[in-house]
Order: sequence, then structure tokens, then C-alpha cells
Amino acid sequence: MDLAQQLVAWRRDFHAHPELGFCEYRTAARVCDVLAAVPGCKLRVGREVMTESARMGAPAPEDAAVARAEAIAAGANPKWVDAMGDGLTGVVAEWTFPRPGPTLAFRVDMDALPVTESVATTHAPARSGFISGRPGRMHACGHDGHTSIGLGLAQLVARRGAKWGGRLRIIFQPAEEGCAGAASMVEAGVVKDVDYFVAGHLGTAADETGLVSCGSTGFLATTKLDVTLRGVAAHAGMKPHEGRNALLAAATLTLQLHAITRHGAGDSRVNVGQLIAGSGRNIIADHAELKLEVRGSNTEINEFMTAEARRIIAATAAMHDVQATVKVVGAAQGAKCDAALKQIVAGAARSLPPTKRVVDSLEMPGSEDASCFMNAVQARGGQATYLLIGSRLTAGHHHPTFDFDEASLLHGVELYAAIADRILTVP
Amino acid sequence: MDLAQQLVAWRRDFHAHPELGFCEYRTAARVCDVLAAVPGCKLRVGREVMTESARMGAPAPEDAAVARAEAIAAGANPKWVDAMGDGLTGVVAEWTFPRPGPTLAFRVDMDALPVTESVATTHAPARSGFISGRPGRMHACGHDGHTSIGLGLAQLVARRGAKWGGRLRIIFQPAEEGCAGAASMVEAGVVKDVDYFVAGHLGTAADETGLVSCGSTGFLATTKLDVTLRGVAAHAGMKPHEGRNALLAAATLTLQLHAITRHGAGDSRVNVGQLIAGSGRNIIADHAELKLEVRGSNTEINEFMTAEARRIIAATAAMHDVQATVKVVGAAQGAKCDAALKQIVAGAARSLPPTKRVVDSLEMPGSEDASCFMNAVQARGGQATYLLIGSRLTAGHHHPTFDFDEASLLHGVELYAAIADRILTVP
Amino acid sequence: MDLAQQLVAWRRDFHAHPELGFCEYRTAARVCDVLAAVPGCKLRVGREVMTESARMGAPAPEDAAVARAEAIAAGANPKWVDAMGDGLTGVVAEWTFPRPGPTLAFRVDMDALPVTESVATTHAPARSGFISGRPGRMHACGHDGHTSIGLGLAQLVARRGAKWGGRLRIIFQPAEEGCAGAASMVEAGVVKDVDYFVAGHLGTAADETGLVSCGSTGFLATTKLDVTLRGVAAHAGMKPHEGRNALLAAATLTLQLHAITRHGAGDSRVNVGQLIAGSGRNIIADHAELKLEVRGSNTEINEFMTAEARRIIAATAAMHDVQATVKVVGAAQGAKCDAALKQIVAGAARSLPPTKRVVDSLEMPGSEDASCFMNAVQARGGQATYLLIGSRLTAGHHHPTFDFDEASLLHGVELYAAIADRILTVP
Amino acid sequence: MDLAQQLVAWRRDFHAHPELGFCEYRTAARVCDVLAAVPGCKLRVGREVMTESARMGAPAPEDAAVARAEAIAAGANPKWVDAMGDGLTGVVAEWTFPRPGPTLAFRVDMDALPVTESVATTHAPARSGFISGRPGRMHACGHDGHTSIGLGLAQLVARRGAKWGGRLRIIFQPAEEGCAGAASMVEAGVVKDVDYFVAGHLGTAADETGLVSCGSTGFLATTKLDVTLRGVAAHAGMKPHEGRNALLAAATLTLQLHAITRHGAGDSRVNVGQLIAGSGRNIIADHAELKLEVRGSNTEINEFMTAEARRIIAATAAMHDVQATVKVVGAAQGAKCDAALKQIVAGAARSLPPTKRVVDSLEMPGSEDASCFMNAVQARGGQATYLLIGSRLTAGHHHPTFDFDEASLLHGVELYAAIADRILTVP
Repeated sequence: MDLAQQLVAWRRDFHAHPELGFCEYRTAARVCDVLAAVPGCKLRVGREVMTESARMGAPAPEDAAVARAEAIAAGANPKWVDAMGDGLTGVVAEWTFPRPGPTLAFRVDMDALPVTESVATTHAPARSGFISGRPGRMHACGHDGHTSIGLGLAQLVARRGAKWGGRLRIIFQPAEEGCAGAASMVEAGVVKDVDYFVAGHLGTAADETGLVSCGSTGFLATTKLDVTLRGVAAHAGMKPHEGRNALLAAATLTLQLHAITRHGAGDSRVNVGQLIAGSGRNIIADHAELKLEVRGSNTEINEFMTAEARRIIAATAAMHDVQATVKVVGAAQGAKCDAALKQIVAGAARSLPPTKRVVDSLEMPGSEDASCFMNAVQARGGQATYLLIGSRLTAGHHHPTFDFDEASLLHGVELYAAIADRILTVP
Repeated sequence: MDLAQQLVAWRRDFHAHPELGFCEYRTAARVCDVLAAVPGCKLRVGREVMTESARMGAPAPEDAAVARAEAIAAGANPKWVDAMGDGLTGVVAEWTFPRPGPTLAFRVDMDALPVTESVATTHAPARSGFISGRPGRMHACGHDGHTSIGLGLAQLVARRGAKWGGRLRIIFQPAEEGCAGAASMVEAGVVKDVDYFVAGHLGTAADETGLVSCGSTGFLATTKLDVTLRGVAAHAGMKPHEGRNALLAAATLTLQLHAITRHGAGDSRVNVGQLIAGSGRNIIADHAELKLEVRGSNTEINEFMTAEARRIIAATAAMHDVQATVKVVGAAQGAKCDAALKQIVAGAARSLPPTKRVVDSLEMPGSEDASCFMNAVQARGGQATYLLIGSRLTAGHHHPTFDFDEASLLHGVELYAAIADRILTVP
Repeated sequence: MDLAQQLVAWRRDFHAHPELGFCEYRTAARVCDVLAAVPGCKLRVGREVMTESARMGAPAPEDAAVARAEAIAAGANPKWVDAMGDGLTGVVAEWTFPRPGPTLAFRVDMDALPVTESVATTHAPARSGFISGRPGRMHACGHDGHTSIGLGLAQLVARRGAKWGGRLRIIFQPAEEGCAGAASMVEAGVVKDVDYFVAGHLGTAADETGLVSCGSTGFLATTKLDVTLRGVAAHAGMKPHEGRNALLAAATLTLQLHAITRHGAGDSRVNVGQLIAGSGRNIIADHAELKLEVRGSNTEINEFMTAEARRIIAATAAMHDVQATVKVVGAAQGAKCDAALKQIVAGAARSLPPTKRVVDSLEMPGSEDASCFMNAVQARGGQATYLLIGSRLTAGHHHPTFDFDEASLLHGVELYAAIADRILTVP
Repeated sequence: MDLAQQLVAWRRDFHAHPELGFCEYRTAARVCDVLAAVPGCKLRVGREVMTESARMGAPAPEDAAVARAEAIAAGANPKWVDAMGDGLTGVVAEWTFPRPGPTLAFRVDMDALPVTESVATTHAPARSGFISGRPGRMHACGHDGHTSIGLGLAQLVARRGAKWGGRLRIIFQPAEEGCAGAASMVEAGVVKDVDYFVAGHLGTAADETGLVSCGSTGFLATTKLDVTLRGVAAHAGMKPHEGRNALLAAATLTLQLHAITRHGAGDSRVNVGQLIAGSGRNIIADHAELKLEVRGSNTEINEFMTAEARRIIAATAAMHDVQATVKVVGAAQGAKCDAALKQIVAGAARSLPPTKRVVDSLEMPGSEDASCFMNAVQARGGQATYLLIGSRLTAGHHHPTFDFDEASLLHGVELYAAIADRILTVP
């Protein structure tokens, strides 16, 4: 099996076994198994690369236990799973080269989404038999590809690394969705000595196989909130007036959040993505849980949105005489890519046959947990970029029929290796 | 153990093992075990007493399987459980007396509610160790008491029935909550020959131990609807405008339903009791499920509410460009109690020492699946009433700290037996 | 012109010149002109019969000035208009008979509604040329008929009063709509010595010419609120986030008020009847004015509704960061009719040829400012009733095509005179 | 009085007499009086420069009549007022120079806003006695200054025009607010032969006296809609269920419009700026009028917003069973400024002593009716720009305390004259 075939095989295996943030036990264990076989690769997992308290929104111990059992049942190596405890699913691979040189880190992400994958025969994973085997979860954003690219890069180190100096690190991050996982790895120091940081994404605005965008603009700052509303139950037929309706409060809150005014200075976003409320049809609902997020094209706008959301949550609680609790479970800042590093990426991209077109930057109108790494690296004087590996998409990210062009996997691996060549090669 | 103690024991056992509508496997199996030991009692269960297609809102086969397994694990006799198939948990006990006479039927109900019971030490079930062992379910309406009264009445037949003629039937109904179960028993013919029909309730407006209300007024007609909204998922940061937000539609629907105008001609009600929508925080939600009900103090008002709800559901779908499907999963009509039968109840009540006060009727400002039996019996010329067995309550029905006075159990059994004496005794 | 013709003429004149509450200058002046010509009638107007500070929601001085000018332009006698100041449009006529006897008071109301009358040729006032000459105002509740009946009764005193003792008082009340005017007349003492109080209404539930209902049940207690919201204006294109949107707050408030839960113990109502907000399309609205009311079938329920409304108003202001001010501009309590007085009405009604049917009471499912007089009279030991003079209606009250059967006018006058006969006649 | 003093005098006179769009009778008449005294100036007004049917949202004839009367009472020359008919308040001044050359047009706007001006003594117009004499109207956007600059430029033609060839045109536009007036002037051909078109604004993003922005970016495309909802009135106490509540529908519509999802591809806006609904507090409201607008940072986004708004309006009507009518009363497209013309502006700006700083472009995050002229000029090959004349502001545009630095008036006139010098000077 050549590398191109291997990349597709990994990707399809990950695709068939999607795992949500902080529960990527099987994915991370498979990553460890592959990396453990790579000469010179030093492996760290779990608590070694994640600070537990800095995670945003970790799973409950019982959910983590269920996820571990599921992972092991699906073939995960228990050795690695055990090392990952309750939601410590990060992995870091590192090569230290004999000659001195800079430290270069690549970040890939491993988590899937709570989306139910399409079974349409026009959808390649369904047609070709690597559709998600887990209803309600799907690799609908391409992280299965990212993880595979990380593994592919590791395969090339032996061949290419002979002329390299310094250090190469590949960070396999959990819980990128929701911007929940990066902070715990930053806190654990995984980029504290990094001179060059590269993260990337398949597709998004680079919806064209062969295109490389050396950087990205338009990172949205974001705040992720979990809101719980507690009311008082009552019989809906006999004594509705004695109830305090948490479900009606949640509906009010949802509508009012979506009606937060647009900001005149730039983009904003708001989404209540999940709402679970009430128990019985004839009972005034006494509880509601909402998962929501706001975003802004800069930190100021995101803070405006967050402040509006917090005021509306408090007022909704007062309006319906219920109790509200608010928990921040994720946050990302804005981010900027360094011009010098983008230039290096451009040179690397142009050197590769599969590259059809190179652009300086494209809009990345979403939030990225990579911003947490980028800001940390730049704060201590390093450079960072967030590149895009072009890939023809079948549908937008997070859509049930999302799929990318698997030819982009090898392109991605070669691009990362060429970047490493340019940064680490010792003359 | 005398009957009073036995009643309390049964009640506490049922209370500790609450089961939701159509899944009362353990309760119904225990009822069968007890009745099977009663001389002269003919027992029918499952398909013999329920028409499957006439149920409103039966459980999915997999949920029924889980419930069966749980019931057996909790000691249910598998023989009976097997006979109850997927959600056919009704039981009918019958005695045919040698001498001719009328047919008298009592109906008791067995289902619990999706309420999480209070663990406060001021709450007797918590203090005395018979609190619900099933988080999220609770006998918060007194049906555990009703089932026990049905069993207690069966014990008295041997002693009292010597002078009786005709037929006595005790109907153990599943799924009273939601007005979902009665129709299937009526359709199966369990009241097709009934001359006198008596159903009753502990407490409600009769919040005073020793009080008997011979009938009830104010039955609310009701319609129970399940609504599903289907939208289109999209990335909430990158392409929110490509989504069709089913969660936001559900919030709109909830608010608009609760804002349906009051009716000038009488009482109405509306409640969205459960709402589950969305999957991930950063995904525009593509689905939402709502469980709701409307009510009216007469059929016309209920039909007004139902028509308003249907129009609002359709318009909400149009407003948010989502697809709505609506399923009727329960319905009750208004009901009236017969004066002659209420007189019989009054005489019976006055003859009993525990009776402190007798009233003709009290308001029953809720909906009752018994109305389905009552209307069927009256339609063929029989008489029906819905009496109330007074009991001091600790909190309103459906409340986490609901509890009744267990002394009312024996009062209820004696009242039912005294009614049977008056109707069935052959001179 | 006989009395029947005179009644129709008065009614049509009033109908063509509808005036809103506290601005009934022309109507009241015409009443005074007619009464001034009645022998033995002592007339009091304005400040003599109304306590200014006890009015709820009086017109602004400049609006009163406009209304006075309009009234005089439409033929009102300036002498009376001047005596009525700013919104003191009440009139009381009184006859004191030589022989001792009880004090009997009738109350009629004079104000019209802010409804635009139908111009359909099927609508009698349009067809017969007495349609409202004032767009946006209409006698859509029959008060034009009530005022005429009051004048008609005054005509009969000379003929019938020879045998009467005690005192007869006819109270011409302004601002019945909105329950705004009665309190100021009660406060001024116009019923402080009344032994028998009779108010009545054409039509409503007595939608049948010839029917007399001796009393009414179902009076709704009510609270009328004016709410002002103050926000901050901003350019809706450039800096929407700097605005504080009072219009959006008003929309939220409206929806949330209409979604106040039904009360399990009886009827409730809520209506935002008027909303004026904002200035320019491209300006975030900085102000909004709402006129609203809540009701309850008893005082407790009305208080529940009022408390809910107040909490929702405060929370809406917090939610949208605007300032709210709330003003109570009207209120009515529940009321009960005295059985003995209803008996007198029944006897009177049965004695009249036009009476086709007499009932003890009908539902009056609205609020009535008469309740204020009734409670005051009953508090000092007097009797009160609120009767209904049956009249075939063309449409519901407050509807643009509302009209009643003018034959009911003479019936009403005769009924009132017959009641006076029974109460005041000295043996 | 020198020109600087004259500009301030004009501006303060206009400021004290604000007039809304299509009713700028006094302003336009004063403009005509001034221009009529300028040698060589050819004047056209009313129907000569506006196509009646192409106006968006003209005033009702009776409102126009009131405005005319008010203007004349405030000193407007009846000759001009008469020529302006019902809402044809545009004026065009033109100079044709003997030698051939290009046609250059400047556009200034004359209308005020429905804002109530602040009476705070910190607000210069209040302190210095030129506050709006018309409650509810205010020059809160600087158009009073723009009109003055147009008049000032006319004064300089005699002095500067000796060396000019071609044609100079100054367009005094009515109804810029709401993007309602330009289309009718374009349709009447006032820019059909224009080679260079310049419009400008005081302040906005150029909140700094001495700053000149040669062009603008970020024009928002917009659609202005008037929505009328018709329901059915009913008595809110007696028969609320017979009503069809247009006010509640309007509240729903407002909330749902403000909750239209953000667009992922750029800025959007939505505002319901005015809402008038209902008549009486105790009547279910049978009508509502809303003035609203949507915007988008490009035409596609504006069309998305417009389509969403239209769907929501239709669905709201269905939801509340009311009738909706929608009228487009204004619209603007996106616009781009020509680089060559911006260069000319830059040169002119740099030549002037009051200029402190020159920038190529600033964000103009609003909609501008000038876009209509700009697109028309560019469509036939001409060049256009929208420049900003920097001015220190006291508050945001449309705010009750908005004011600009009057020193910018002379700067503006000199800038316009310098641009004309550069474009029209014949060698």
C-alpha cells in the first residue's frame, strides 16, 4: 500500500468511527499505534499534553466511560485508552534532530460532529461503505482527513528528515469543534517553545482541489455558553398558573438571542444549536438546557454579543420567574497569520506538482481553536499561519452530505513536508 | 397483614417502581399475579383487552423491549410480560355471579409520570424508603393508589359477593396520562355491555381525607399533538444563511402557541411540555420535536384551540422554511356524570364510617381518559360517573413532592365495595 | 313626535356624533339641554359630580380643548361645555318628591369607541344616514342608546312621578369604556345616599329583542395599564448596536403578555389594544407606547394577571436595556347583583307588553365600570343590579357593523319607569 | 457677511426649519431664491427635474398641502412652492460655459429626519437658538449643511468659472433619507449627460475636521418596505376569540424580522423603525402599519434579506389569520467609487489649507440614495464618487444631539470648487 492508498485507508477508517470532542479514544489510540511504529518518534498522550482544568466543557465521567468502552469494542488499544483518562485524548508526536534548528509544530484535529450522515447513494461514504457506523455522529468537517495527513507526515520524516535540524512536533488535538480543546494543550505547554506553527484545513473557502491558501483571514472570535433554566413543574390542565415554565423561557431566550441587533462595525453570529426542555406533555416544564454560541469578526464585537446574550439570559429568567445558570464552555479569539511564514508556505506550495493555484489568504469565516495556539506562539515571538488545502467539496461543512476530494490528502502531506523542508533543513 | 396494611404495601411497591404509559409491565404483571390468586376471577390481558391500532402514541418496539427487560429485572412475572407484547399492558378482571343482574365496571389506571421525585426528607416516600427507584419517573398523580384500590376491591368480592348478581369487572387501564390508552380498550369492547361505569381519583379537588365527591364537572376536552420540524443544517459561523433553523422555528411555535387568544366562552389551555431540538452548538439545527396539548372546557373550545394550533404550526413552518409533521397522539372529550348513579354513590359514601363529608360534584379541571369509557357507556344507555376519593395532599398533582394520605386507600376500597353492594345485590 | 320617535331621534343624533371617554362634551351638553327643560329636574354637571383626581386617564388639556371646540362646532351649548372643564363631562339629574321614600339611581353611559364604522349599505347607520361623522370613532357598544333611555326616563317622571316619594337620580356617566369614569363620580358622592342602584346594557348576552335579564353574572375584574418604553435612537444602517430598541422591546412585551399562562381557577384575559412606536424607518426606535389591559373572573385572578404583566414589563425593559414606566389608567372589580332587587326588576319586566321573556341572570363576560357604583352602594347597605335589555344585534359589540334593534329603546325606558314605580310609589 | 458667515447663516436657518422627504418646500424655495440671484444660473424645479411616478413613497396630497401651508407661513416664496406641486421638491441649478468641456454634477440633499431634537444646553443648536422649531423633526444627519454647501458653491461660480468650460450642475435632491427621491430625478434625466458626478457627506466615518475621504466603500444595498396588516376587531373581554389580532401579528413580525439569520457572506441589517397598531385598549386590534428596511453589504445579501422578509410577512399573516399588504417605498443598490475621480478629489483636497489629512476611502456603512445617481452615471461611461468632508461630530448621525463642526462648511465649498477647477478648467 503506497502512502496515497494508506492515507485513504486511514481516513475511511476514521470516517467510519467518528467520535465527539474529548472522546476521540479510538481515533487517538489508532494514532498512537501508528506513531509508535515510526522510528525516532517520541510520543506523549493524555495528561502529559493536556491540563485537565483548562479544558472547556469536558464529558461527564460516565459518558467518558461509555466512550472508552465503545472505543475498545471497536478495536482501540486499551493501553492508550487507559492513558487518556476521562477526556484527555490529546496526542503529541515529536522528533528531535541531532543538529540545532528551530522548533516547528503542525496541529491536526481529530473530533467529529453530532450530525447524522446521509445514506444517499450519491454520498461517497455511503456508496463506498465507510459511512459513519454511529448514528448521530459524523466526520462532517474533514478532521478525519486532517488526522490522516498528520499520520502521513510522520511517515515522511524518516525519508526527508535526514537533512533537518531542530525539532518537529505534530499535535493531534481533541475537541476542536466548540473551541474547547486547544486551551488545555497550550496550558500544558505543547507550544511553549515553538518557533513556527502551522495549522490547516481541507476545503472551506478553498473549495477546489489543487488550490493552496497560505493563510486565512476573518477568524471569528467566539464564546460558547451552556445555559440551564430551572422552573417549577405543575399540572398543565389543573394549575398551570402555579408552574414556572422553563421551556417557554427557553423559547423566549432563543428568539431574543437570534434577534440581537447586528453590529455596525463588523460581522456577528449567534446560534442556539441545541435545546432540550421539559418532561411530560401535560406538565409545565421545569427545566431546559440550551447550547449556544456567539461570534464576532473581532474580539470587541464578540464581547458585545456575549454581553448582550448574558443580559438577555438574565432578563429571560426574570421574565419567566425561573433560575438561569450560565457556563462558558468554549472561547476563541481573533487571529492573524504572519506574512513571512505565509511566504514560506507559498514557496513550498509552488514546488509541488499537485498545486494548481496559490493564494495569499482566503476568508475563514468561522472560529478556529487553532487561534489559541497561534496567539500563544506569536505572543512569545514565533510565527503562525492557518493554511487551507484546497479540495473539491460535495456540500458545505457540517452538512450530512459533506465530503472532500481524497486526492487532497496526499497533497496536504506533501505540502506539510515541503514546509518542514524549508524551515528545518540545515544547510 | 390486614387489608389496610396490604393496600399500603401494594401502593408503596408500585410507587417505588413507576412505569410510563403503555410500559406498565411490572405493575400490570403484579396485578395479574394478585388477581390470579383471587377465586372466581377471570383474567384477560394484552391483546384480549386492547386494540393495538386504537392506541394513541404507543412506544417504539425497542423502547418496549427495554421496558420489558427492566420489568423482569425488577421481579415481573415473564409469563404476563410476554402476554403484553409491545405496549399492550391492559388487564381486565371479571366475576360473573350465578344470578342475573347488571354489569358494573370500575376503572383504575396504572401509569406514572415523567417527573423526578423529590428527595427531600419532608417527602414521605423519600423519608420512608419507597421513593421512585427510576430517576425521571414518578407516581406523582396517585395512580399507584388507584391500582391498589382495584386490587383491594378484588379481595372483597369473595366476602361480599355472595348476595350479588350480574357481573363485576375491574379494568386496569394503561396510559391514562396523555389520554392515550382508553380508546384502545373501548375499541376492544371492554365496556360494550356495561350498565354502570365508575372511575375515580384520589385527591385533586377533594383535598381532604374523608370527603367523597359523587361526580365531577369541568372535564376538559383535549387534543395531544406531536410535532416534528425538519430544517436544513449548516455551519453556524460560515454559512448560517444556508440553514433552515428548526430549533428557532420550534421556539417561535412554542411562543405563538402559548399566545393563542383566550376564548370568550370558557376555559382553554395550551402547553408545550417537551421540546428537543438541534444537535451541535455550531450547527444550524435541522430538527425539532415538540410534545404539546391543548384543552377546552367543552369540545367546541378544544376544537378552536386545535384549529389555531394547526394553523400556527403550518405558518411557523412557512415562516422558517422548514417541514412540519403533526401527529395526534391523544384526545379526550368532555364528559357528564349521571345524576342517578351519583345518588347511588352518595348513599354508599354516607354508609361508611370514614366518610366525613359528601358532595354532589367537584370541579375536575383536567382531562381524563375515563371520559372515553364514560361516553361509550352512556352512548348505549348505561350510566357513568367519575367520583373523587378525598385525600389530604402534600402538593399539587404532578409535583415532585406530591403525596396523598394512605388512609384514603381503604376508604376507596370500601366505597367501591359499597357501590357494588348497592348495584349488584340481588334481593 | 311621540316618545318612541324621540328616542330614535336622540339615539341617531348621538350615534352620528360619537365622542371618546371624558370628551363627551356634545353628548353631555345635549343631555343638559333636554333635562333643563324637564320640570322638577335638578341638574348638576362637571366638578359638581366628578372628583378630578379620581379619574383614571383623563385627556391632556390640549386634547380636551380640541374636543370642546369640535363639540361647539357641532352645535353643543357653550354654557354646558364650559362647565365641563378639561374632561369633567358627567351629568346628574335628580328629582326630589314631596313624600319620603328611598333613593333610587339609574346609571347610563355616554362614551363611544375608537372604532371606524362600517360604510356597508347593509349597516343601518350607513344606509339611513346617521353613520358616525368622525372617522375612527363609533358608538359600537350601544351607549348612544343608553343615553337616550336616560333622557326618555326623564320625560316620564312628570307623568308617572305623582305617586312617587323619595328621590330619583339619573347618572349620565362619561368614560365607561376603560372603566375610567365611575370612580370619580363615586368619589364625588353621587351614590353615597343611594338605596337602589340600577345600571343596564342593551344587547350583550341578551341578543334578542323582548328579553329582559334582571341581573348579570361573570363580571371580569380588570386593570388597565399604559406602558411607555424609552430607548436610545441610532442609525439603523451605521450603528445599530448603539441603539436601545424600544419598538423591538414593545413587540417582545406584547408577545410575552399574550403568552401569560392561563389560570387554572377561572377566566383571564389580556390585550394590548394599541401600540405606537418609533419615528423613522432607518432609526432604531427610541420610544414606544402601549395601551393594555388584563382581566380575571375574580379579583384574585386579575391580580395574578396584573402581577405577571408587571413582572414581564420590568423584565422586557431589562432585556432590551430600555426604561419602562407603567401607569394604571383604569380598574374594575368583580360585582354581584342583589336577589331582592332582581326580583323587583323581574316583576317590572313581566308587567310590560314588549317583554317576551325574563331570565334571572345572564353572563356578562366583560368588565363594567358600573361595578364601581354597585360595590359602593352595597358597601353602605343598598342594593344593586346590572340588568340587560334584550335587543337583536347585527354584530358583536365593538365591531364596525354593530347595531341594535331601536325598538328596544322604548322597552328600556318603560322597564326603568316600571322599576321606579315599584320602588318609589308611596302607598 | 463673508461666505463663511453666510454658510453658517443658511445652515442655521435650514436647521431651525427641518422638513421631511418630499416636503422640503421651504428649504427648496429658499434655495431657489438664493440661486435666482446668481448670474448665469439656470434654474429648474419640480416636474422639470422629477418624474412623479418614479418617486418611492410620496406624501398624501393632504399632507403635502399641510406642508406647503406651513412652508409659506414660515416665509417660503409661494411662487416656488406652487411649482413644486405635491411632493416635487427637487431643484437643479446649471451653468453652461461658453467653451466646450465635460459636464460635472454635484448632488446635495435637503431633507430632515423624524427625530425630536435635544433641548440640552450642551447641544449647540439649543444653546445658540437655532434648534428645530418643529417638534418631531430634526436635521440630525447634516443635510442642512449639505444644502448650504450647494448654495456656497453657486456663489463661487462667478469668481472661479471664468476659466471653466462645459457645464456645471448642482442637484438639490429631496428625500434622500429612505432612498426615496433619487430615482425620480434620474428618471427625469438630470444626470443623463453627466461625465463626472460627485456627492458627499459631512462627518459619518470622517469624524475629524480637516479630513477628506476621496471616496467611500461599504455602501449597503437596501429595500424599504411599508407593511399593512388587517385583522378583525372584537371585544377583548367578551369575544377575544372572534378577533384577528393585527397588533399581535405586528409584534410577531417585528421579532421574527429582527431574528432573520445573519448572512455568512457579509453584512446585513434589518430594522422596523415604526409601528402603529390598534385603536382601543379593550378592542382586539384590527390594523397595524409597519415601516421597515433591510440592507446588505451587496445586492445579493440585500435580496436574501428582502426575500426572507417577504416570506416572514406572508407567514405572519397566515399565522394570525390577518391580511398583509407590502409596498416597496425605497431601494438603493451597492455602489463603487471611480479611482480616477478619487485621484482628482485627492489633488483638490491637498491643495486646500483647511485640509489636514486625505484618505482614499472610508467605510460608509449605510445606504445612500446617491448610489442611484452613481450607477446611472457609470452605466453610460461617466465617473462617480462619494466623498466625505471631515467634521468633528457631537453624537452619531440621527441622534437627538447630533451636531457637526460648522467650520467644515467652508472647507466643503472650497473642496467642491477645487474639484470643479480641476475638471472644468479649459487650458
